[in-house]
Amino acid sequence: MGDAPVNRQGEAQEIRQRIRRGEITGHTSGLASGRVQGNVVILPQVLAADFLRFCQLNPKPCPLLAVGTAGDHALPALGADIDMRTDVPRYRVFRGGVLVEEPTDIRHLWRADLVSFILGCSFSFEWALLEDGLTLRHMALGRNVPMYRTSIPTAPSGPFHGPLVVSMRSFRPAEAIRAVQITSRFPGVHGAPVHIGLPELIGVRDLAQPDWGDAVEVPADELPLFWACGVTPQAVIAEVKPEFCITHAPGSMLVTDLRNSQLAVF
Amino acid sequence: MGDAPVNRQGEAQEIRQRIRRGEITGHTSGLASGRVQGNVVILPQVLAADFLRFCQLNPKPCPLLAVGTAGDHALPALGADIDMRTDVPRYRVFRGGVLVEEPTDIRHLWRADLVSFILGCSFSFEWALLEDGLTLRHMALGRNVPMYRTSIPTAPSGPFHGPLVVSMRSFRPAEAIRAVQITSRFPGVHGAPVHIGLPELIGVRDLAQPDWGDAVEVPADELPLFWACGVTPQAVIAEVKPEFCITHAPGSMLVTDLRNSQLAVF
Repeated sequence: MGDAPVNRQGEAQEIRQRIRRGEITGHTSGLASGRVQGNVVILPQVLAADFLRFCQLNPKPCPLLAVGTAGDHALPALGADIDMRTDVPRYRVFRGGVLVEEPTDIRHLWRADLVSFILGCSFSFEWALLEDGLTLRHMALGRNVPMYRTSIPTAPSGPFHGPLVVSMRSFRPAEAIRAVQITSRFPGVHGAPVHIGLPELIGVRDLAQPDWGDAVEVPADELPLFWACGVTPQAVIAEVKPEFCITHAPGSMLVTDLRNSQLAVF
Repeated sequence: MGDAPVNRQGEAQEIRQRIRRGEITGHTSGLASGRVQGNVVILPQVLAADFLRFCQLNPKPCPLLAVGTAGDHALPALGADIDMRTDVPRYRVFRGGVLVEEPTDIRHLWRADLVSFILGCSFSFEWALLEDGLTLRHMALGRNVPMYRTSIPTAPSGPFHGPLVVSMRSFRPAEAIRAVQITSRFPGVHGAPVHIGLPELIGVRDLAQPDWGDAVEVPADELPLFWACGVTPQAVIAEVKPEFCITHAPGSMLVTDLRNSQLAVF
């Protein structure tokens, strides 16, 4: 990098161009530092209104950053040049709820009735926690964050219903308080934790057995904090088994031009 | 009250006038609803600089709302008519660290070298928690909040040093997160908790045996939250045993014209 100033706006666009050219096909974690990355859900228009209302009813697991119009693969609110058919490194294509393909490009699958939904992702609040000097144990261990199905129901909308899924990060008590303060500033990316300590109260019986991700031990001098997780809508959609649905592959997100700091409400 | 609009500015002034006339000599809890009440410390000028620096170093237990000038019994920052010699319902007078008198008026004791310090009090953040619909168990039980000496040292200044004292209120996990958010808005009245859960980590071995106040049970589905407490400077001053010192009697605070909501930083 030397002394040349980094054009960080260019950096997000450049990452997307490399993704579009097929040069990046894996995880986006750490790319375009400081930029918002989004969870991707693409549904036929017939399901769009119910899913949109599901997000409105459940803003903590489903914080909507942008919704496209039917058939339009642009999303100028998140980046002037975004093309939803090519700009996610790897997609997952579901037919009747069954995973049928994991392409790096969905131009051959695009339809005039498809609607794109971009949901905020924990990368943004993890960025804010790291910027404040906190340590994320799962990251230090090189593991995925542990995620759990809870006994907390989401508010249903049309066919969409199911339990809230949470991700867990543990901190010493004073840092747990700081983590609540920091993530409270970011309601657009899951916001404050939904639960702290006492996992059994939300139906989590064994922290060592996450339903998704990797187990990460909670030391005796730390408390587990639970945040609403973007896996919630994915699990809910999997239950609905829509005729057709496309999502990002896990960890392979849409890189946007928004800065994480722009999502802070104060 | 009927339909007449309440002049709440007048209410705080009127409470002080009744205190001044000796008509109110006890607790001020619940008086002049929504107005800030303050802890009172009056020290000889020879100790004022060290105590002021102690407050600056320890803003969570010692949130300074106002400091008078030596010999001046007015405090216009907190109320145009305040007279520190008459406007606290009941005072405590210490000589060499020994409680010698609990008068309702200190005009006969006032000296040209006395400096008044007013520190924020938990009544303000408790008001904010109650306004948000949270329940304070100690209040529901008609008890004083339990307070504990911790293993956390304050930052010393001159002769002033000693452990942090905390007050404890317990909440169910989601309400505990809400309580962190609400009290974070009020750094001028102790602010966010300093600790949550795991009392042994801050040297509190038995919640059932508070060092001050009354024991209040923590149900199995709640977490104890610990806030820095205004008893900290009182305990620290008691150790210093100053030649002369006047404080408010417990629960018998200075009622100011400030609104609690004015202390919210966002």
